[in-house]
Amino acid sequence: MNKNRRSFLKTGILAGATLPLVHCSPATSQQNNDDIYEKLDAALARPVLKKELFSKPVIIESCDLLEYQGNYMIRVRSTDGAEGFCVGHNIRMPHLFPIQLLLVNPFFIGKDATQLDQLMQDVTMYQNNYKYQGYAIWIPIATVEMAILDMLGRIAGKSMGELIGDIHHTKIAVYQANDNRGKSAEESVANIQKLQQETGAKAVKFKIGGRRDIPESPVGRSEALIPMMRNTFGDDMVIYADCNGSYQGKEAIRMGKILEANRIDLYEQPVPTDYYEDWIATSAALNIPIASGGGEVSIRNFRWLLGNDAVQMVQQDLYYFGGMVRSMKVARMAETLGYPCTPHISGTGLGYVYMMHFVSSLPNAGPFHEFKGVSNEVPFQCDSSTLTPEDGILHLPKGIGSGVEIDPDFIARHRIMNM
Amino acid sequence: MNKNRRSFLKTGILAGATLPLVHCSPATSQQNNDDIYEKLDAALARPVLKKELFSKPVIIESCDLLEYQGNYMIRVRSTDGAEGFCVGHNIRMPHLFPIQLLLVNPFFIGKDATQLDQLMQDVTMYQNNYKYQGYAIWIPIATVEMAILDMLGRIAGKSMGELIGDIHHTKIAVYQANDNRGKSAEESVANIQKLQQETGAKAVKFKIGGRRDIPESPVGRSEALIPMMRNTFGDDMVIYADCNGSYQGKEAIRMGKILEANRIDLYEQPVPTDYYEDWIATSAALNIPIASGGGEVSIRNFRWLLGNDAVQMVQQDLYYFGGMVRSMKVARMAETLGYPCTPHISGTGLGYVYMMHFVSSLPNAGPFHEFKGVSNEVPFQCDSSTLTPEDGILHLPKGIGSGVEIDPDFIARHRIMNM
Repeated sequence: MNKNRRSFLKTGILAGATLPLVHCSPATSQQNNDDIYEKLDAALARPVLKKELFSKPVIIESCDLLEYQGNYMIRVRSTDGAEGFCVGHNIRMPHLFPIQLLLVNPFFIGKDATQLDQLMQDVTMYQNNYKYQGYAIWIPIATVEMAILDMLGRIAGKSMGELIGDIHHTKIAVYQANDNRGKSAEESVANIQKLQQETGAKAVKFKIGGRRDIPESPVGRSEALIPMMRNTFGDDMVIYADCNGSYQGKEAIRMGKILEANRIDLYEQPVPTDYYEDWIATSAALNIPIASGGGEVSIRNFRWLLGNDAVQMVQQDLYYFGGMVRSMKVARMAETLGYPCTPHISGTGLGYVYMMHFVSSLPNAGPFHEFKGVSNEVPFQCDSSTLTPEDGILHLPKGIGSGVEIDPDFIARHRIMNM
Repeated sequence: MNKNRRSFLKTGILAGATLPLVHCSPATSQQNNDDIYEKLDAALARPVLKKELFSKPVIIESCDLLEYQGNYMIRVRSTDGAEGFCVGHNIRMPHLFPIQLLLVNPFFIGKDATQLDQLMQDVTMYQNNYKYQGYAIWIPIATVEMAILDMLGRIAGKSMGELIGDIHHTKIAVYQANDNRGKSAEESVANIQKLQQETGAKAVKFKIGGRRDIPESPVGRSEALIPMMRNTFGDDMVIYADCNGSYQGKEAIRMGKILEANRIDLYEQPVPTDYYEDWIATSAALNIPIASGGGEVSIRNFRWLLGNDAVQMVQQDLYYFGGMVRSMKVARMAETLGYPCTPHISGTGLGYVYMMHFVSSLPNAGPFHEFKGVSNEVPFQCDSSTLTPEDGILHLPKGIGSGVEIDPDFIARHRIMNM
């Protein structure tokens, strides 16, 4: 089975989508590069929220951060009494609630939610928020944005995905994520196999390297693990390798060649996020598709990575990247070049539900999407989906907004945070 | 008077320093580029803290964030009873205190302060802090780092500057910073002239553009203001223009040519921080020196900007960039190429005092340094300097650590913050 980058592209899109089979060569001339950027800029310029679904403005009356026993939620309410919720990033919100309360929520009061694309631009200039570019500002912005989309969906009678695109997928195949760093190659494979059998996933991801400059443990784990993964799961399993930026320069290329020799299907985050020249050099030297993971926080840098063919899959994270509007812009840039999008999940609360809605609207959704397990932090009802993989497939919740109803008694126990 | 980039370099270093008169051309071959990176990496590898000043470890026993009426301070104490303080970034600490308390301070407890270079590396991996790269993590880290340097200075009987370099400068010439956006060209010039006359500064900076994508106000202000600045202040005044990333692409080049035509001495932050290709294109098209302001948060990206001759002055901010050790590494990279360092001041509290110590230790200090006014937030005593420009010159405080003694009664009024 020849799994080169082109065959990845051919087979590498969720069923139902059609994408041209192209592989962008690295720009060989300024003219070529300018042409690519022109396409990417056109993709960036396209509106995301379907404003035409709304016949009148939806004015945001309140935007509150709620907290109860470590669960955070944003609740937005319109002047007409509509309401939307987004469960927060509960691991990171304890670090970020002052930014949420002081720099993000106040901006949205009195704004027209149907102008969401523009609000996503303007909030970066409010209080010079752009200076905080990074997870610290994007997570709070994303949390409000997805609450607004939940509210707008309930007003328009549409799912979050329908607000930002057409529905291309209702069945979402997952890959089984895991972290077995620190364990031997043998134990890692056994753990991954057990998880994969539980979910029936047709794709798995495994971690190599030590994470950034942490030495690998045990020594030599990655080089033993890579062939063991392919031998254990066989040629029909799609296997992704995630490095969390463990390599630099020639070492990133050397490890990539080992992955290629074992027909691994994806090389995720080979080098640290801001090692831009290393991204290009690694991509130029290899045939295996390379993905930028959840570390990238800049639309401009995704444009650069794509414009220079340094990545062949985009994996922006809905929270870390500032919500669905911004994430859709990156997915569309990738689509322009014939490349798939597989969003990263930083995943607490209902993160995987929001991921499913986002993926449902992607014409260029990747073939398999991240699954880190079902959340039990937030009690909710969802009649249209178990939200649990069945034979490796998650079923998109139907209904409006997020498609799930958070238990009203649970909501009522939250306090409104203030500073 | 021909003020081209080369003459800037010749005259552009604080008195007493000698630097080769070179102008790096943009790398024309991979080999050339590799050679430059080899030099930059050698500069990065040099130790910063002079460990040899300490005969035994200095173990950090406590690292506390103190607060009183909006004034924040980090206090570090050693197991031997030594103490150091750093006044916080009081505009931003209300957003960042949870990151300070949860993700930064705990790392330092029990660590040996004399291993500061290594600690600055390791704190980025603690709790995966590197994921927050940006002001949000660097400001808290910087605040602890400068408190540690204050403490180490008191132990070794050295100033903060003496801990990280040799003292090259005790007289620091300032330029008068200001922000007159929104005012007419005429009113802007009058305001800047008044400020300049108060401090006797021999250099001034003025702001052009609207800041990022904010439209300029009044319309046409910059194009009127640029020649007016030169005509008003004459050819002997050094004049810097700061854009706060207002331009992109060809517009950045067009504005640069207007600056050149009026013999303006520096073009600061012409394009947004993460518009890396625009930095290169702007630099390649112009002769005026270009400086990266306080927006850049990545050592790797400064290496790239310098390695590709996209900047000819570095302006990292002690708080925004994570403290003196990291800032010194960037200054040394610039020094390697014959370029000056003029730190940005994000300036509250004692920021300008820390800036003076940092500048004192730079062989490649720029000719004029930012001055935004004396702080009155923190009552302190400094017998060795007025800390006020006299005929445009600030005098470096003598003494140990920061060289200033914060009023003990004021310190005593602070509470220790906890979460």
